[in-house]
Amino acid sequence: MGKLKGACVIGQSGGPTSVINSSVLGCAEAAMKSDSVTKTYGADHGITGILNEKLYDLSLEDPDELARIKFTPSAILGSCRYKLHDPLTDATDFYRLLETFKRYDVRYFFYSGGNDSMDTCSKISAFLMHNDYECRVIGIPKTIDNDLAMTDHCPGYGSAAKYVAYTCMEVGLDSKVYGNGSITVLEIMGRNAGWLTAASAIANRDGLGPDLVYLPEVPFDLANFIADVSKLYKRQKDVLITVSEGIKDKNGTYISSYFSDTSKDRDAFGHAQMGGLAGSLANFANSKINAKVRGIELSLLQRCAAHAASATDIEEAYLAGQAAFNAAESGVTDKMVAFERAEGPVYKCLTKFVDLVEVANQEKKVPREWINAAGNGLLKPFIDYVAPLIQGETGLKIEGGLPRFAKLKKIMSRPYQNT
Amino acid sequence: MGKLKGACVIGQSGGPTSVINSSVLGCAEAAMKSDSVTKTYGADHGITGILNEKLYDLSLEDPDELARIKFTPSAILGSCRYKLHDPLTDATDFYRLLETFKRYDVRYFFYSGGNDSMDTCSKISAFLMHNDYECRVIGIPKTIDNDLAMTDHCPGYGSAAKYVAYTCMEVGLDSKVYGNGSITVLEIMGRNAGWLTAASAIANRDGLGPDLVYLPEVPFDLANFIADVSKLYKRQKDVLITVSEGIKDKNGTYISSYFSDTSKDRDAFGHAQMGGLAGSLANFANSKINAKVRGIELSLLQRCAAHAASATDIEEAYLAGQAAFNAAESGVTDKMVAFERAEGPVYKCLTKFVDLVEVANQEKKVPREWINAAGNGLLKPFIDYVAPLIQGETGLKIEGGLPRFAKLKKIMSRPYQNT
Repeated sequence: MGKLKGACVIGQSGGPTSVINSSVLGCAEAAMKSDSVTKTYGADHGITGILNEKLYDLSLEDPDELARIKFTPSAILGSCRYKLHDPLTDATDFYRLLETFKRYDVRYFFYSGGNDSMDTCSKISAFLMHNDYECRVIGIPKTIDNDLAMTDHCPGYGSAAKYVAYTCMEVGLDSKVYGNGSITVLEIMGRNAGWLTAASAIANRDGLGPDLVYLPEVPFDLANFIADVSKLYKRQKDVLITVSEGIKDKNGTYISSYFSDTSKDRDAFGHAQMGGLAGSLANFANSKINAKVRGIELSLLQRCAAHAASATDIEEAYLAGQAAFNAAESGVTDKMVAFERAEGPVYKCLTKFVDLVEVANQEKKVPREWINAAGNGLLKPFIDYVAPLIQGETGLKIEGGLPRFAKLKKIMSRPYQNT
Repeated sequence: MGKLKGACVIGQSGGPTSVINSSVLGCAEAAMKSDSVTKTYGADHGITGILNEKLYDLSLEDPDELARIKFTPSAILGSCRYKLHDPLTDATDFYRLLETFKRYDVRYFFYSGGNDSMDTCSKISAFLMHNDYECRVIGIPKTIDNDLAMTDHCPGYGSAAKYVAYTCMEVGLDSKVYGNGSITVLEIMGRNAGWLTAASAIANRDGLGPDLVYLPEVPFDLANFIADVSKLYKRQKDVLITVSEGIKDKNGTYISSYFSDTSKDRDAFGHAQMGGLAGSLANFANSKINAKVRGIELSLLQRCAAHAASATDIEEAYLAGQAAFNAAESGVTDKMVAFERAEGPVYKCLTKFVDLVEVANQEKKVPREWINAAGNGLLKPFIDYVAPLIQGETGLKIEGGLPRFAKLKKIMSRPYQNT
């Protein structure tokens, strides 16, 4: 394929991370430098911005502010959770998208997201090809869950992993302060894959990590849990536990569902209470062991704590965006950027391109052989895997004691500006 | 009073902060340099370490590790929540303490803590004087709550305030990512004083802070709350709210108690559920406004996030410890170190000494005139007050991607070593 000239659109989708904007910057900077690209747009709230023709011209942004998005968490262009209909039953959205692409002469489309976004990307790519509209479509992975297939790891994971490790070390120190016995349960994101919860084990380097780690990859048993905790509580008094929100029993039932009795979990106003696995497990432990307990849910903090982001992750996210554009310009389409490790003892991250359709609708889990036999801790191969991903500190500037995050003007474009 | 020669004991009490260890270091380094001091001990878990004769010789620690405690959160010597009996009804503990002091020839006693610890300190001081045992007793303030009387502010507050502001900015960016309406409630520590919750308002510098801030200082009304949120939700879709855990209605009833119906707040196992004001308020807002809601409790994270500590706070905590020793050596006793601001436009923190008995059993609250008329936001005088306290970043060393916190050997001493 030869050089294709036209506009470029970058969109963001799904739950944000600390570094998803770094990928946008990597892609946008490469696009703005290229003479194949007439305009570089950000799509307002992902695919919905394309459907509603809400596109920003990124070249109109202040270069200093644009540079700051590398260190700014959340999705600076806005995200969405919009699910496109199946084009075979209802292709309205797809025709609408094609229309926008034609009006703005979009020939490069980059979509940053997780599993579902790669599926969206794959469908758009197929539809455009089917309609003989030449456009290079590349997916840029991002997810704190690290569960995308066909890639060694995902941008966003390293920073979340680093934050989880920091928090375990700090909460670990805090929770042991009285030394007279306590059980602390930290709940970490991950419905089906335990990568992020597993990262808590890195904190054990200095003996400050969790004593027990439970992932969705291993069936969870309440009686075993109590036995594990009880043994440690007797031996060392203070016990720190990390659990994935998605731990399940051997029948695949979420443990969190054990604790949500719909007839009872209502407040004085009759409204449903928000569940908290950490609190429920802590209370359950208390009922069996009679200890001081505390449940802590890391909630949004684990995916947006840019002040504690990993420099490696930030740079790799940038690299993914940059590589996506460069590959597209050279003719690659219908692919996702993926990472692989260079051979040899020194960590080096290389990019490769994998079929979107192979990534969509797959989930990568923590290998069972990286988890100990008892299913409550991680082994050295996992630590070796994750350690390089958390290296280096963010370049985020602190001004007057507070982070200085990017502010974009987001000036909406109109199609006639391109023609 | 002339020079008093003998051993020095430093103890920590109550809930930890990110910088309470910096005060220990400031005091210990001054003591170890002084020729008035024969030995410098850390009391294991505060007053209980004195009652149980568990004292560490701090001079036996590796100097590099000792230096690291300046940046290590939690109470490195161990803390306690032990309440001494009233010496008029049961002086057993006091005689036990006097016995330990005599055996170890303790002539300098420093106790770092909040309100209750200053009360403990005051009682010990009075008892020792009453028994003609010469010992200089100084309290060193620490609390993220910032509620101690007679001092401009407390060590520990600036770091917690900075972390709260960081978190508001980051969660604010994250929670607004879809742009289609959300209500996020952040619950921050503070039972009776709203200083820490108020600090969330600093994040508004860049428009990333909370839209509404509720403190215990202003009676909270659910109907007004819904009206406040509703108005903003209509105007701007995404709403970020911070609340003190201790908000109360006009009768002084904790709002959190509205949502804990003891007959209903039990899980499927019949165990009491841990309450969560943030979740309850979020659910309540949802029932009235029908929006996507989320409640986040900052829990222990806000008091132990040393990686985001304020350099100003760290240095002032050190200064408090150092000033405590120097004053004691020069004859001051029965006092607490306190802070005052130097006159003039440039922030400068000075130390002074106030009577322990005046600090004990008092609580300092956020002045009503620093809160807006509607009772849901902070005014410039508060921002001007808090801004200097969050300046500067921690000197905590990151090694291999993780914080390198201090590890002490804690070698127990025996009295014969002193004689």
